[in-house]
Amino acid sequence: MKIKPVGPIPAGYDVLNGELAIGGQTASELVRAAGKTPLFVYSRAHIDRRIAELRAALPARVGINYAVKANPHPDVIAHFAGLVDGFDIASSGELAKLQAAGIDPARVSFAGPGKRDDELEAAIAAGVTLNCESAGEAARALSIGQRLGTPPRIAIRVNPDFEIKGSGMKMGGGAKQFGVDQELVPELARKVIDEGAVWRGLHIFTGSQALSADAIIEAQGNVLNLAAQLTQEIGVPLPKLNMGGGFGIPYFPGDEALDLARVGEALHGLIDAASPVLADAELCIELGRYLVGEAGVYLCRVIDRKVSHGVTFLVTDGGLHHQLAASGNFGTVVRRNYPVAIATRYDGEADQVVNVVGCLCTPLDRLADQAWMPTADVGDIVAVFCAGAYGATASPADFLGHGAAAEVLV
Amino acid sequence: MKIKPVGPIPAGYDVLNGELAIGGQTASELVRAAGKTPLFVYSRAHIDRRIAELRAALPARVGINYAVKANPHPDVIAHFAGLVDGFDIASSGELAKLQAAGIDPARVSFAGPGKRDDELEAAIAAGVTLNCESAGEAARALSIGQRLGTPPRIAIRVNPDFEIKGSGMKMGGGAKQFGVDQELVPELARKVIDEGAVWRGLHIFTGSQALSADAIIEAQGNVLNLAAQLTQEIGVPLPKLNMGGGFGIPYFPGDEALDLARVGEALHGLIDAASPVLADAELCIELGRYLVGEAGVYLCRVIDRKVSHGVTFLVTDGGLHHQLAASGNFGTVVRRNYPVAIATRYDGEADQVVNVVGCLCTPLDRLADQAWMPTADVGDIVAVFCAGAYGATASPADFLGHGAAAEVLV
Repeated sequence: MKIKPVGPIPAGYDVLNGELAIGGQTASELVRAAGKTPLFVYSRAHIDRRIAELRAALPARVGINYAVKANPHPDVIAHFAGLVDGFDIASSGELAKLQAAGIDPARVSFAGPGKRDDELEAAIAAGVTLNCESAGEAARALSIGQRLGTPPRIAIRVNPDFEIKGSGMKMGGGAKQFGVDQELVPELARKVIDEGAVWRGLHIFTGSQALSADAIIEAQGNVLNLAAQLTQEIGVPLPKLNMGGGFGIPYFPGDEALDLARVGEALHGLIDAASPVLADAELCIELGRYLVGEAGVYLCRVIDRKVSHGVTFLVTDGGLHHQLAASGNFGTVVRRNYPVAIATRYDGEADQVVNVVGCLCTPLDRLADQAWMPTADVGDIVAVFCAGAYGATASPADFLGHGAAAEVLV
Repeated sequence: MKIKPVGPIPAGYDVLNGELAIGGQTASELVRAAGKTPLFVYSRAHIDRRIAELRAALPARVGINYAVKANPHPDVIAHFAGLVDGFDIASSGELAKLQAAGIDPARVSFAGPGKRDDELEAAIAAGVTLNCESAGEAARALSIGQRLGTPPRIAIRVNPDFEIKGSGMKMGGGAKQFGVDQELVPELARKVIDEGAVWRGLHIFTGSQALSADAIIEAQGNVLNLAAQLTQEIGVPLPKLNMGGGFGIPYFPGDEALDLARVGEALHGLIDAASPVLADAELCIELGRYLVGEAGVYLCRVIDRKVSHGVTFLVTDGGLHHQLAASGNFGTVVRRNYPVAIATRYDGEADQVVNVVGCLCTPLDRLADQAWMPTADVGDIVAVFCAGAYGATASPADFLGHGAAAEVLV
């Protein structure tokens, strides 16, 4: 059978007693401690290292926000509380999680095109900044603020005329449900300022999951230029600019890691050369996947090993109900293999081509196709890497009644 | 802007006071009673009518099983308890739901390629039939049965050499994680019988979501022939044959409903002509989507109406976190529109092209693209039809923290 490559395993994972080890514990030990598979393991050390790399590369003036939607596990949020400058949320459900973690709402901004009135009210009452996505939303926010006697903190999310080239997911450019078309922003900004909002600036998101430094640098230059232009048109100083994110991680064979040093170096230059109207603006970037994606590993156990028409299947107790993106069923056209390995034979020599599948009763439930791996059997543990972001919560956990996976931060 | 058609609205939905009505209640009334949007509404009348159509079309000898994975809502399960002959489950989580509904485990069979030991134990202890998917699983079941002192009720799921042609999802033919390759079935069947299992027969599943009567008739003929051949090779009478399902429903523009009368008529003939070795076998088909898919409507509310670059967006409080398949992100290559309508302007004249999107902060979250609809505004209710199967539980409800939708059976 033809071999299909698997994606690149992120740096920083070790072998211990022949097994994959995370934070000094083997996969078997982690599973034993958690009491079950499937299990998501998130690594503090990976998160810390990634933040340190960013702090070293980026200008000190650029703050780092964590996009909670990437991984809203309470322990992950609590860990980020001491590491990042701000938090971006996408719902009042995420706000409640930040409040439970004791995070100051002044550090929080709320984006999303369909904010309900009760969500606006919760955010305004808490003092969260609203990244308003439309004139209608801004009007609702102002009216709710008036009723509460609390001026809403309002930034405007801009739908820019450009986007990150080659971005995995396009969030700007052309007609979009996100943000306010750039030419309509100045009028709306003046209106919300006039009507008593606390002006919090601009949010310009241009894409996500980009691996090209050039594309990100170009987008960041465009964002700074657009922010300067809009600030001049608005006519009041810009308090803050959320420059968006878009930093990608390698998932698939052939993907190369983003050259962060080059992005950082270029950003120094871009900021030095930026318009003086931005001189006093607080700057930040917003990252989710880049901060936590490679820090997570999904462990599941081989329940059956079977051969059908000469093809070997490892059937696990995991699957697309926790790893929808890895199964190739979430916004993907051509399925490719994520980085997948046999955690309990992590230093074993590959000697067999296998299909690793989940336990769901659907042919969509695939974790690795035609992968070249050490021979594994019932009881072995499979690791799917790059599982830290958009895994547990971006998958249909209730599908077929198997329920949620366990999650642990180590 | 170019208009893209929406899928066909299923029969049996009415207009009342200008609104979509389900079970005699308008969309507004249903939402008011539920206290929230988004809301799944499941219609008893639709389910009852579908069952009646099947009973009228199919030979009396053919039982109807409900595949719980299509919609495991407790009220839906309870409603089916009085309508169908058996239930098919895919996990011990689904078993627990049937037990909570007081359903006799003797009516239940359990398929799925990754059954854990604790699931096998729960099923054997309850007296559920296991549709064994491999020799390894059968051995585990026998060993657990011995430990419990309860002979397991075992059927074998067959991986047939054929499948339903043009099936939306292929579950047979070639190398698969499902079932036992047909040539290996007789030996395994004799083994489990010899080792003391209660022999429950064969499960031959050949595909799902097929709209072609010809393809289903051909597959059913092949299933009966294969069952007869395997029964002769096994050498003991066949207690039961689960012939699989595969009956599809129209989701997309141009889809035509399955010609059930023709399937039923052909099945009478196939059974009359079937080998005498099947004369005493209990026969059943297993349906999920066909029983409940068209009986469900997903209602969500318009939160914002905005124009970007000349394109009108209706932003709703619903989205792919409840309607992953409708968004085009679940096993779909080319996105097409489900049947979608403005429930609160159900008899309104279409006069505008709009994009209906969800509230999630991702461009994947689309409910209808370039749809021709009556002008709707904030507060209106959008209906997505064909939402009764693989909706609430086959979607990432925790994504972005908006939480689950409400569900009601009327």
